[in-house]
Amino acid sequence: MLFEVNPFDIEIGQYKVMLNLADARDMGMNAGDRVRVKAKGASITAILDVTTQMVEPGKVGIFTEAHRRIGEAREVDVAPAPKPASISYIKRIMDHERLTEDQIRTIVQDIVDNNLSDVEISAYLTTLYIRNFDSQETEWLTRAMIDTGERIHFDTHPVVDKHSIGGVPGNKVSLLVVPIVAAAGLLIPKTSSRAITGAGGTSDLMEILAPVEFSADEIKEIAENVGGILAWGGATNIAPADDKLIKAEYALTIDPYSQMLASIMSKKGAVGADSVVMDMPVGPGTKLPTVDAGRSMAKDLIDLGDRLGIRVECAMTFGGSPVGRTVGPALEVKEALTMLESGQGPNSLREKSLSLAGILLEIGCSAGMGCVAARGEGKAMAERILTSGKAHQKMMEIIEAQGGDPTIKSSDIEIGEHSRDILAPTTGYVISFNNKRIVEIARNAGAPADKQAGVRIHKKMGEVVKKGEPLFTIHSSKDWEVERASNDALRDMPIVVEGMLLERYPRYSQI
Amino acid sequence: MLFEVNPFDIEIGQYKVMLNLADARDMGMNAGDRVRVKAKGASITAILDVTTQMVEPGKVGIFTEAHRRIGEAREVDVAPAPKPASISYIKRIMDHERLTEDQIRTIVQDIVDNNLSDVEISAYLTTLYIRNFDSQETEWLTRAMIDTGERIHFDTHPVVDKHSIGGVPGNKVSLLVVPIVAAAGLLIPKTSSRAITGAGGTSDLMEILAPVEFSADEIKEIAENVGGILAWGGATNIAPADDKLIKAEYALTIDPYSQMLASIMSKKGAVGADSVVMDMPVGPGTKLPTVDAGRSMAKDLIDLGDRLGIRVECAMTFGGSPVGRTVGPALEVKEALTMLESGQGPNSLREKSLSLAGILLEIGCSAGMGCVAARGEGKAMAERILTSGKAHQKMMEIIEAQGGDPTIKSSDIEIGEHSRDILAPTTGYVISFNNKRIVEIARNAGAPADKQAGVRIHKKMGEVVKKGEPLFTIHSSKDWEVERASNDALRDMPIVVEGMLLERYPRYSQI
Repeated sequence: MLFEVNPFDIEIGQYKVMLNLADARDMGMNAGDRVRVKAKGASITAILDVTTQMVEPGKVGIFTEAHRRIGEAREVDVAPAPKPASISYIKRIMDHERLTEDQIRTIVQDIVDNNLSDVEISAYLTTLYIRNFDSQETEWLTRAMIDTGERIHFDTHPVVDKHSIGGVPGNKVSLLVVPIVAAAGLLIPKTSSRAITGAGGTSDLMEILAPVEFSADEIKEIAENVGGILAWGGATNIAPADDKLIKAEYALTIDPYSQMLASIMSKKGAVGADSVVMDMPVGPGTKLPTVDAGRSMAKDLIDLGDRLGIRVECAMTFGGSPVGRTVGPALEVKEALTMLESGQGPNSLREKSLSLAGILLEIGCSAGMGCVAARGEGKAMAERILTSGKAHQKMMEIIEAQGGDPTIKSSDIEIGEHSRDILAPTTGYVISFNNKRIVEIARNAGAPADKQAGVRIHKKMGEVVKKGEPLFTIHSSKDWEVERASNDALRDMPIVVEGMLLERYPRYSQI
Repeated sequence: MLFEVNPFDIEIGQYKVMLNLADARDMGMNAGDRVRVKAKGASITAILDVTTQMVEPGKVGIFTEAHRRIGEAREVDVAPAPKPASISYIKRIMDHERLTEDQIRTIVQDIVDNNLSDVEISAYLTTLYIRNFDSQETEWLTRAMIDTGERIHFDTHPVVDKHSIGGVPGNKVSLLVVPIVAAAGLLIPKTSSRAITGAGGTSDLMEILAPVEFSADEIKEIAENVGGILAWGGATNIAPADDKLIKAEYALTIDPYSQMLASIMSKKGAVGADSVVMDMPVGPGTKLPTVDAGRSMAKDLIDLGDRLGIRVECAMTFGGSPVGRTVGPALEVKEALTMLESGQGPNSLREKSLSLAGILLEIGCSAGMGCVAARGEGKAMAERILTSGKAHQKMMEIIEAQGGDPTIKSSDIEIGEHSRDILAPTTGYVISFNNKRIVEIARNAGAPADKQAGVRIHKKMGEVVKKGEPLFTIHSSKDWEVERASNDALRDMPIVVEGMLLERYPRYSQI
């Protein structure tokens, strides 16, 4: 049937059109059905919505994305179209049925092409959360995610990569691992994310030093020139299905296991990584509450790597406290740069960075040349690269290649001028340290949007502290945000100090 | 933070607002989060979406439903608000945890209040499809669905009701059961649906005879005046959660079992039914492929009824062929009215209507007065009421009470003037009869939107037919729709005729 075009100037991330309920009934159609919309020279399949008021009979409301494709036509033909086969495949997963490679590929392609509605994407993620794919299906999912996006083919090998499962604040180790590994002659084209619920992702940090938004071709060029890059994955078209799923995962606060494995490994597969080290923080508040949970995920990641021809090694790391003593973009960059310049800094940051870099030096091997470091010698080699200043020099090359200032020093990094110390209310030991609260306070101070906002930690778990000494300092560009974050911190302290004598009977009040 | 209001004149069935990505980041918020929107004298919680283009920084896009609540304010305050607790309860179901009555009630209330996004509603339905509620949770769900809508409290009892699980075409039995039962002195306030994927729901049929859209108060008044009513449930606010869920259920083509039980029984509970008969069509293409599946559902419905204080009796009925010989609103009404006038008509329609009405006469009992019919005598009493003309007289009273013409005759009902007979291609027996194809052909002819469109069936399963005799006739108000439906029918015949000799070896061509 022919309908007059009624453009709706609203972007909704999908091809969507709206008919009057009467017209939809005439056509025997309901909201959620698919329609073929044809104009001169253009034809798209769109998701139908119906209304009693927004669109008059005889007209079709066309949202921005679909309208762009239809062009300037005043009249279009709207006809019923079949629903995407993906919907029946998603239903098969619900019904305990195993999918074929083609069926999984069809789902991923429909996600990438915006052919599935929010309702359908949500059903997919919910189903996968409850019923995980088996390892064969997860391999197919990963391959489909790689193949539906851009890939980078490096001429030199080995290509190595590093990924963190996340969940620990202050985890700026990529700013050290990438230059150490690149300085040793390995290719490390690292893409990373921005913070969604955290105080700063690696991309939020690196952006202080240089631009991070590059195409796949640019990533290849920069990495081949200087050995490494620290780019924002969201700016590329590498494994794009993941980006389409994040919105619904966030809304539902779920992270389906098979999808998480596939999302991690598809990004590594698409950049042609030969060897990958996984940083897996374990501890309360992280994604891995126990070492056993970590081992189980490590096994699955290694298995998936084997299926894809990628050597994976997993490092379970201590996730109970922040890495280093800073949380928030500029504070973290300053801490990482200081360590590159001097070779020194907080033990937790130094140990973790050298361990992860060391693993990559041991597994970064090529057929003709062998591995960079022998088994057990990687960490010592990483330490030499750091203390010799070679890692610092490499980082400056990477910053320059990405378009930043290669003469930047840690002392140039500006931290929010407004600050407040939060003091120990008593003398004793730090007996409790709440990572999640530290992140909340950094976010209340404005991080990650305010790059100069964050928290500097003076006392960590088990340390001795005297009454009135600062436990941590809150920084922000804005006075009122320091105020807000401080009030929040004092209301529910993230760091708890007690004397060794925790309680005494009878209590003083009872004597 | 204060934002300038940028109204979006688009109804989307939810309170939704849109911020520029930069502003959302400043506030530490993401799409799917909730915000509190405050103007002078008005405050609502809305779902946040983010955009890079549609809304400038400093402005907030407000969709129609939210804008109505906000009023004429030019500026509003937007602040983060907690996500509905329902989301964490839905996640509990995913994680195999049992919900409390309060948690289930909160989910239902949030559904009714449009507090959940499409993504969240979809996750709820998908989860419930995979993980059913137990019988206690299903009772709580049903009670919450009753309590979150309007209820009807009748002064007279017993109140009886009838429900069909659906899945069989031509099922116009309510047009007979309601007047028979009401004529026997029972109160039967029947609400029913319109077709979504079928060729005509009971409301689509009844609408030919009288208006069907009434408030709960009007339903009470009409039913108390004449003993019965045939109203459209969608026009009332009775158990409204169901109406909010149908859109996503349709989009996903799922009908989660616990939700289906609760939706059925909440409508019966809300009108105060004491006794209910369930019509459960069994057979290929219905929701119940086998009698065993039917027994299992019957047990669950009876158990749920016990928990709610409603006596439920289930009748498994033959669902392999259409009920009667007509499919499509006007054709079905004509067939039902003819039977009310004459007491005669197709055996399948007559038997089924009398059986279901008979059960209600046997279980429609009051404390003081006993039951209308003794066990085993209901059907005979229903037959007497039908053949005596009392049911017809009662139907005319109901039509009049609903605002229709009480002098209407079956011969007044107009059928689509355009028609085409589909002929038997050979002499033999009907060896295959495809219900779903019959419905598709009726819909292709224009049903249910074109009330005069549909299919009249001349030959059913097992009947003898001669080559060239009509198997069925397609009717429509529009010539081209008859054409379209005929072509579709001939392409894939719903009724297959074969001689008793199905195949012969060697075949003719091989001789």
